[in-house]
Amino acid sequence: MAKMNSNFLNLKENYLFKEISKQVNQYTAAHPGHKLIKMGIGDVTLPLAPAVVKAMEKASAEMGKKETFRGYEDSGQGYDFLREAVKGYYKKRNITISTEEIFISDGAKSDSGNINDIFDSSCTVLVTDPAYPVYVDSNTMGGKKIIYADSTPENGFAAMPPSCGADLIYLCSPNNPTGSAYTKEQLKEWVDYALKNKAVIIYDAAYEAFITDEKLPRSIFEIEGAKKCALEICSLSKTAGFTGTRCGYTVIPEELMFEDNDGSEYSVRKIWARRQGSKFNGVSYPVQRAAEAVFSDEGQRECREIVGYYLNNAKIMMKTFDKLGIEYTGGVNSPYIWFRCPCGMGSWEFFHKLLNEAEVVGTPGEGFGKNGEGWFRMTAFGSMEKTAEAMKRLEKMLG
Amino acid sequence: MAKMNSNFLNLKENYLFKEISKQVNQYTAAHPGHKLIKMGIGDVTLPLAPAVVKAMEKASAEMGKKETFRGYEDSGQGYDFLREAVKGYYKKRNITISTEEIFISDGAKSDSGNINDIFDSSCTVLVTDPAYPVYVDSNTMGGKKIIYADSTPENGFAAMPPSCGADLIYLCSPNNPTGSAYTKEQLKEWVDYALKNKAVIIYDAAYEAFITDEKLPRSIFEIEGAKKCALEICSLSKTAGFTGTRCGYTVIPEELMFEDNDGSEYSVRKIWARRQGSKFNGVSYPVQRAAEAVFSDEGQRECREIVGYYLNNAKIMMKTFDKLGIEYTGGVNSPYIWFRCPCGMGSWEFFHKLLNEAEVVGTPGEGFGKNGEGWFRMTAFGSMEKTAEAMKRLEKMLG
Repeated sequence: MAKMNSNFLNLKENYLFKEISKQVNQYTAAHPGHKLIKMGIGDVTLPLAPAVVKAMEKASAEMGKKETFRGYEDSGQGYDFLREAVKGYYKKRNITISTEEIFISDGAKSDSGNINDIFDSSCTVLVTDPAYPVYVDSNTMGGKKIIYADSTPENGFAAMPPSCGADLIYLCSPNNPTGSAYTKEQLKEWVDYALKNKAVIIYDAAYEAFITDEKLPRSIFEIEGAKKCALEICSLSKTAGFTGTRCGYTVIPEELMFEDNDGSEYSVRKIWARRQGSKFNGVSYPVQRAAEAVFSDEGQRECREIVGYYLNNAKIMMKTFDKLGIEYTGGVNSPYIWFRCPCGMGSWEFFHKLLNEAEVVGTPGEGFGKNGEGWFRMTAFGSMEKTAEAMKRLEKMLG
Repeated sequence: MAKMNSNFLNLKENYLFKEISKQVNQYTAAHPGHKLIKMGIGDVTLPLAPAVVKAMEKASAEMGKKETFRGYEDSGQGYDFLREAVKGYYKKRNITISTEEIFISDGAKSDSGNINDIFDSSCTVLVTDPAYPVYVDSNTMGGKKIIYADSTPENGFAAMPPSCGADLIYLCSPNNPTGSAYTKEQLKEWVDYALKNKAVIIYDAAYEAFITDEKLPRSIFEIEGAKKCALEICSLSKTAGFTGTRCGYTVIPEELMFEDNDGSEYSVRKIWARRQGSKFNGVSYPVQRAAEAVFSDEGQRECREIVGYYLNNAKIMMKTFDKLGIEYTGGVNSPYIWFRCPCGMGSWEFFHKLLNEAEVVGTPGEGFGKNGEGWFRMTAFGSMEKTAEAMKRLEKMLG
């Protein structure tokens, strides 16, 4: 009898964003013609940068000619041209990695979810609370024990290492959902904690491009010792508007090893390569060319403009929250603003009020963990016009 | 301490195709300027069909305009337009499926590898021998017990149900590597076996487009009862030359259920959707538009021409094997020819002889399982010229 992996029974009923989508669809069906402003799911709205589109069109045309057609990609880790571009992107920040350490993916979610496949189910996984739900859900599917490090208003929503140990640690900075970003000193504490526990840090740097404060680290590899205890997952989804184009990359240093009870060592990089070789097909050639263009001078200039546009939206939002006297984090080095629900409301309660009274969609904080209860996430990924309009509606609703 | 999933220690050292690639690279390095004819890895050589390229270029351009830009895809299963196209593709063959039952993927390998995530590790997995290595490797990573059903010259390399039970059954027809294709009667036996054992059949139909004999089933859903015990994994890699473009689809019928010891039932489709929601990012919008074009009238006409070209290569190969009196299967309803190594040679032995003496690359049968020992796979995916040249060299070598 084909039995289900019973770990799936331990999952919460609905993936947060699906639940929001359901609620929104119900509202829209009941109110035809009404225009909602969506600041919930964190999807971008600006089109791809011209350099990126050009590269994708060119590569698509190449696929139609015998001389330039591409079939299977040999390395299984992504084309050399793209891995060279990623390597160069790190190099500009004085971080040296080799192309062998780079794995091209279809985005950060897959890698942050699938990476637990290569860890023993006896591993204890540490997740900050609140956190991106995929960390918890994928490790629940993998039968791992999950413990939490609290992100609270008291620590500026930047959870620090607990007194107990852990084997696998998920960190996201700038953080989704709280928008907080670790300083080098804070990350150093995590690296030291990981080294002490022989743990591996899964560092989700999907939002690194939003860091404007030059003192803040944009990669965990800026921290001494990190290559021995961390891998880094990056995405072009928010950096370059790839939410529908789908490409990201993960860096696993050569130095990162699994240790066995008997002292044997295994390369995490090699084991991940083995996993991907059997369970991932790689990214489309035209998409990898599009991603390469993101890292070109032209692409970087254009993408920085896009990021700047969203950060300006965040400024508009922050002004409103300041005016309303609402406590929040994020918005400065992050496309997310994380704020305390007004009047002591619960976060789903505020979600419904905002949807019904202002026709604005946000994300209830408790969807990200218990410490999100009473908090709320809004994204700066909309148009400037809609962002400004949403802030007006919010002011009116609370005024 | 972060411990490795110890199931990885049970994997064979190297993924078959990586090993071949290594050997080929070594030969090429030692013999600069020599031109190898590659009939090993099963990669296609003809460019994408014009209708497909046109669709991908158009969609790429759409991503550069605000009005037509696409971000996250809502359903998590692929765009409606592509799932409608797949539904229509089945409809033409008198098979009714709904769009909810269709999951767009980056190709058959990922889905056939990842699907074991949703099954309990206590499940016994039945794999035919020889078989596509991913079935064994991915289930080994998942800690499943694997048993084998023998495909041998005696049964025309079409393994039939064993006397013992199994919970999960991998079938591939037309078969990779043997090129054999199940008849409806044979598939009915498998369906009956699965129903009796409450097992699930993972039906890999990646090569269905190569079936020319109208009496042979191109989908397991042509068999009565299959929707209660099977899911079907399809690919555009070989059908439409998508090995570098990356798109496939998996059909999981509503009727397919997991049953628990206490009699509770769970929808396989829903559990897979849940898995994908956390561990897969979906397929690029332009790639999904390209895939949609494969199913248009124009795309179908063009893709059938491409398949015809490869099947003509297979004919050229079969003529040579007939002439040389070499025993083989496949080639008629399949892009693969599976033949007995001449003079009682072992399959890696023949691989090296063919590489060194004829400068032709093929795939050693034993890489697909013990019953592949002494057998060899060659693909018809090259150009007609190179295929003919390879056959000349083979004749010369054995002459």
